Amino acid sequence: MLYLISLGLSDENDLSLKGLEAGKKCEKLYLEKYTNILNTTPEKLEKLFGKKVEEVERKNLEEDSGRLVEEARKKDIGILVSGDALAATTHLSLVAECRKSGVECRIIHSSSILTGVGECGLSLYKFGETITIPFWEENYKPAGFYETILKNKKAGLHTLILLDTKKGGMSVKEALEILEGIDKEGLLKDKLLALSGVGSEDQRILFGTVEEIKGKEWGKPAVLIVPGKLNEFEREFLEKGN
Amino acid sequence: MLYLISLGLSDENDLSLKGLEAGKKCEKLYLEKYTNILNTTPEKLEKLFGKKVEEVERKNLEEDSGRLVEEARKKDIGILVSGDALAATTHLSLVAECRKSGVECRIIHSSSILTGVGECGLSLYKFGETITIPFWEENYKPAGFYETILKNKKAGLHTLILLDTKKGGMSVKEALEILEGIDKEGLLKDKLLALSGVGSEDQRILFGTVEEIKGKEWGKPAVLIVPGKLNEFEREFLEKGN
Repeated sequence: MLYLISLGLSDENDLSLKGLEAGKKCEKLYLEKYTNILNTTPEKLEKLFGKKVEEVERKNLEEDSGRLVEEARKKDIGILVSGDALAATTHLSLVAECRKSGVECRIIHSSSILTGVGECGLSLYKFGETITIPFWEENYKPAGFYETILKNKKAGLHTLILLDTKKGGMSVKEALEILEGIDKEGLLKDKLLALSGVGSEDQRILFGTVEEIKGKEWGKPAVLIVPGKLNEFEREFLEKGN
Repeated sequence: MLYLISLGLSDENDLSLKGLEAGKKCEKLYLEKYTNILNTTPEKLEKLFGKKVEEVERKNLEEDSGRLVEEARKKDIGILVSGDALAATTHLSLVAECRKSGVECRIIHSSSILTGVGECGLSLYKFGETITIPFWEENYKPAGFYETILKNKKAGLHTLILLDTKKGGMSVKEALEILEGIDKEGLLKDKLLALSGVGSEDQRILFGTVEEIKGKEWGKPAVLIVPGKLNEFEREFLEKGN
């Protein structure tokens, strides 16, 4: 059996009782740190589960998934993933591979940034497509996500903007600079939201202008939200501050 | 302090370690069963937290929230909520009320149907606005949600359809009959998804025609999904079945 064990939103105590039990039962535990920024340490996880936790690279997870699936055929193994395991498509591929190979796979869910952002006061039902801003490189400057924000905005929907998790995670400032460079429709003239440390004691949320957001310190991981049409409750909640 | 303690997706073991600790610390625990269908029993929760759990009606939560907030000013109280507490706006109103009254409020997150539906293989990033189908009454037959499904579909986005939680929860069959009665654009000619017991041992998922879905037994709570544009991975995952 292959268990995908979600660690949850902010630290190792967001793990569910079910996840703890599954992890303790597994003969081998792997930690996947690539699709999300880990808010705990491998040491804390080893203490929690009472066993060694081996770090696995994304490359291994994607290129070497056959080995993991074969290992899961012989014994119970668990892969620990920050947030909810199914918020990243990499893990769905692993589920598909298990299925093809006839190996049992079970997902243990936990809290995710996709619902944790409800802390800001916006209705979770009114979000449109979620986007990710990737780091730009000399010859790689994708900007298709901007059209998605516009499309959501025109439909009155909020856009959750995730930030690249590479290089320790993109900062709020870096993300805003990329957005400012392509904002031909003037989306950033309106206030937007920045959130970091969602669900933790250090949670920070600000509904403000780009300049106000840039002037504040943000932890990692952080996300941005471009609000769509606000109802009265949402507007009041945002304006009163967090 | 008022704790909103999310119980998670499928049973009491989806509670997080953080939620368990907070609940044990609270002097008084309430259980809110209205915005979601409880997948456990008050008795199991009392055993887990080692104290009495008092059931609270939605009416009490909404009309009598002032009393709860005042109680939370004097001592630590917790409100237990199925799924993630912020997936229902009722709970955000309570957060707003705490804030207005200067009473501390903390949300302990857990897994939610909003992310749990990732089990079907659709990308969670590609969902549009979420809708709920309410029970129809003689003089109350709202159908605005149909336009939302159409709008999502035209934008290529998937629509998560939640079902009314009143009267023990709307069945998949009841929901499909309402949809069939208003489906002037022929959305239901294409296959759609039904899911029940997401995250539990009894999880059922079917990608099929309305007739195929109606012909199967479904637990409660259940949800439907009208898929938008499918990418190759999604199509293959859906076609291979769950």
